[in-house]
Amino acid sequence: MKADLVIRAATPADFDAIWPIFHQVVAAGDTYAYAPDTPRAEAERLWMSLPLKTFVAELAGQVVGTYYLKANQVGLGDHVANAGYMVAQAARGNGVASAMCVHSLDTARALGFTAMQFNFVVGTNQGAIRLWERHGFQIVGRLPDAYRHAQLGKVPALVMYRFL
Amino acid sequence: MKADLVIRAATPADFDAIWPIFHQVVAAGDTYAYAPDTPRAEAERLWMSLPLKTFVAELAGQVVGTYYLKANQVGLGDHVANAGYMVAQAARGNGVASAMCVHSLDTARALGFTAMQFNFVVGTNQGAIRLWERHGFQIVGRLPDAYRHAQLGKVPALVMYRFL
Repeated sequence: MKADLVIRAATPADFDAIWPIFHQVVAAGDTYAYAPDTPRAEAERLWMSLPLKTFVAELAGQVVGTYYLKANQVGLGDHVANAGYMVAQAARGNGVASAMCVHSLDTARALGFTAMQFNFVVGTNQGAIRLWERHGFQIVGRLPDAYRHAQLGKVPALVMYRFL
Repeated sequence: MKADLVIRAATPADFDAIWPIFHQVVAAGDTYAYAPDTPRAEAERLWMSLPLKTFVAELAGQVVGTYYLKANQVGLGDHVANAGYMVAQAARGNGVASAMCVHSLDTARALGFTAMQFNFVVGTNQGAIRLWERHGFQIVGRLPDAYRHAQLGKVPALVMYRFL
């Protein structure tokens, strides 16, 4: 992790910087279920309004990554957190995703969550799978053909889980 | 399945009959994540508004069961359906859940879905697990301690999946 990486709570104004990252990531159609042409207003709802909290990662004062945190289920399942992470293409290789993951685990723990679940890790996204495994996640589920990958067609999605 | 069981699309007016079933099922705190004290208006939103479609099962003209059908993910995961089923306590043992499951699989197939996923089958709900297995579902994921069972405390939840 770069020494000058700062992770902080996102403000509504941060969406100007989050949107190009969101759009770049989902347009690729290889990691998130969100439609590749998700409009900005819908992205704002999904990333800023629906989650419990949203954060940004800044490198040298510039927003290069973002993540959301929320309960993965309502009611009797709301002790398990869920998070999603995005990093700008140009900023990859700086440990931003890893730093956000650590931050999200700490934040979830502080909020009283006792586990974290990823519902839909694209099975071909080996970099992410290895990263989450290094951060203590295990593959607890495999969903055959559950993701329509832009280049590869239907590929599996994985469910990953760890206690906090 | 009883010969006089009819499964049909729910109308808004049907929620008067659905609500006691919903409340009875979630109040037990042993099968659904929905908070046991979910208010009626929130139940209506969750069961009637959010899903793609909602159905009722009538036995001798009385609503005894209900199910919803929706896409389990947005965008690049929206070819996989999700459904939830509830049967009034007094009507159990009549094959209502089984008939609704068959109906939901047929409906999902007709709508173009290519698989069905249950995200959160309570691990102690052996009757449901066996029923879904008889209808072609396989356990594809296990979420440790993911459900706070009203009597048993934290128990696993299962992810179940089948192609259509």
